Amino acid sequence: MELSKTYALLMAGGKGTRFWPLSREEHPKQLLKLFSNKTLVEETYDRIHSIIPNERVILATSRVLGPKIIQMFSFIPHENIIVEPVARNTAAAIGYASMLIAQRQPDATLVVLPSDHYVANHQAFIDTLESAMDYAETGAIVTLGITPTHPETGYGYIKFSDFVTMELTEGQETKHRARKIDEFVEKPDRNTAMSYLSAGRYLWNSGIFIFRVDVMIAEIERHLPGLYEGLQQLMELQDKPEDRRLRERIWEQLPDISIDYGIMEKADRELVIPSSFGWSDVGSWKALTNFPTDERGNFESGKVVAVNSRRNVLYSSQGLLAVLGLEEMVVVVTKEAVLVCPMDRTEEVKDLVQELRDKGMDHYL
Amino acid sequence: MELSKTYALLMAGGKGTRFWPLSREEHPKQLLKLFSNKTLVEETYDRIHSIIPNERVILATSRVLGPKIIQMFSFIPHENIIVEPVARNTAAAIGYASMLIAQRQPDATLVVLPSDHYVANHQAFIDTLESAMDYAETGAIVTLGITPTHPETGYGYIKFSDFVTMELTEGQETKHRARKIDEFVEKPDRNTAMSYLSAGRYLWNSGIFIFRVDVMIAEIERHLPGLYEGLQQLMELQDKPEDRRLRERIWEQLPDISIDYGIMEKADRELVIPSSFGWSDVGSWKALTNFPTDERGNFESGKVVAVNSRRNVLYSSQGLLAVLGLEEMVVVVTKEAVLVCPMDRTEEVKDLVQELRDKGMDHYL
Repeated sequence: MELSKTYALLMAGGKGTRFWPLSREEHPKQLLKLFSNKTLVEETYDRIHSIIPNERVILATSRVLGPKIIQMFSFIPHENIIVEPVARNTAAAIGYASMLIAQRQPDATLVVLPSDHYVANHQAFIDTLESAMDYAETGAIVTLGITPTHPETGYGYIKFSDFVTMELTEGQETKHRARKIDEFVEKPDRNTAMSYLSAGRYLWNSGIFIFRVDVMIAEIERHLPGLYEGLQQLMELQDKPEDRRLRERIWEQLPDISIDYGIMEKADRELVIPSSFGWSDVGSWKALTNFPTDERGNFESGKVVAVNSRRNVLYSSQGLLAVLGLEEMVVVVTKEAVLVCPMDRTEEVKDLVQELRDKGMDHYL
Repeated sequence: MELSKTYALLMAGGKGTRFWPLSREEHPKQLLKLFSNKTLVEETYDRIHSIIPNERVILATSRVLGPKIIQMFSFIPHENIIVEPVARNTAAAIGYASMLIAQRQPDATLVVLPSDHYVANHQAFIDTLESAMDYAETGAIVTLGITPTHPETGYGYIKFSDFVTMELTEGQETKHRARKIDEFVEKPDRNTAMSYLSAGRYLWNSGIFIFRVDVMIAEIERHLPGLYEGLQQLMELQDKPEDRRLRERIWEQLPDISIDYGIMEKADRELVIPSSFGWSDVGSWKALTNFPTDERGNFESGKVVAVNSRRNVLYSSQGLLAVLGLEEMVVVVTKEAVLVCPMDRTEEVKDLVQELRDKGMDHYL
């Protein structure tokens, strides 16, 4: 692969309530410090920093998060930060970034990275990414599929078929071999997830994509002509600050569709690389139990004292959190709010958040 | 009874860790606001305020708590606040207060009240107290015994025998009839507590005593001559600020014994009045479940949102406490620390506190 043509797009616009009270609206998952003294988006940046220089790192974020992201990434050129005027789905952001990059370098390769995931093994991650770039250079849209380690019901899956026999650039060897994609499947129930695990042909959908921007733009033109049209207009308006309102109106009218539905399920030359680099989307408090920090299976962050307690998620960003005789509970302490709930009910946190909203307690969200 | 001779002694020197993190060392149970916007010691004062004027209210407290008590009760004459230089047991404080009062009014009646209890029915409490004073005026040492409502293992019990046939002052009628005391018994185990409940002759030891100060002083002289001697010396030194060190040394040498062991179990003329005024010593977080504040059996204090949660104690003095799917748990949120533990393990909080002490985290205690 040619690293000098490689760009990264960090998708940092998401909002979420599953980590409430930590991920309040202005403080979503990508801005949490779960595993170190850095936020997840900073950790994502760190992972690709060794192979992609700052001038080729693009960040896509929302208007609410824009100021924080710009401050956090003050070393990234300002024109590389895309602040979406209204929230649209991944196809819009990826398409916009692709066109932006194509203006600078028409045959660039783009690595799209969700900014709120965890990766245990950085070298394995980079190795896999480099193999993906090799395939992408030949014109494929490549996604990384994670080899499942347990019957997870919280992820979408990718079913793969044969090895790809595609010719890579002459003389090149790639560490990881890509597979053809049979189908994308929705989050399964428990039994289905078990059958996927034993079938051995299903991978977790990581949301990580690698492709040439010209290929992606062509696919968008073909499968999402409305998006293509809108993005073209935005490109023409991008240097005209006086057209801010017009740009906003065009953004609002972009189709609200994910790259998975809009492109990946329709494109011809799409591949998946089965990957194992200790990945998690850290989708909920519960997911943190996969990263225990003590020998009793507790995930602890902040000043925590746990007596006779097992398999809990214990997070404090404010004062001492002391627990006693607790099992499989989530306890989160912030300055404004404290959450306590059993591990197997963390899905209901969004209902709790809705209840707070209904009660007019929005200042806690 | 003659109310003009009646004094009250509020015992407000206790410290405790059973309400940690709320009752840290400088903030024990009597200074907590559990049932209203007033502390338990203020609520105790309020209960007797209608029958005993401020100049006859005495407060006994510790050196640590002294400044807070003095500030809180600025309307009580300063000379009525006894700040014990070192912690001694109840016999010392009660004996000291008795001698202090005897100097002013030798035939005064004294009502001794722990300052960290809950009383539901104030009028029934006052009625019972007035009956107790009637008996006390005849020279008896009277205690209030609470008719048990459940097989409580956290209280000491008093076994009563026959009704008292003592002559009260001529023409007087008393609402509550006293019983002779058969014996004082220690905190029972569950089965014993069940048998006490069904036997019908056992009452909870409330720690509330009513007696004439001259009677108490005579009993101390007889049964605790060492205490009598020390208290006499202290009385002689009380107006001499230059003898502060000497007074401290005498305090240190006072016997560390409770009024129950030292006097009540030995005295001849002791009586108990079976009482029912909705009493609890609120001995632990668990005890608060007897005072649910919502229809699902939760005790809630502060800003609390509880979804699908039952029979919990939920206390927040700092920010929002949100719980989801919780049953029989104690969650306490303060600015410095948060405690989460199952209801049936609240007894272990003292072990947790010890662990914090061992770890050098004394600033959280």
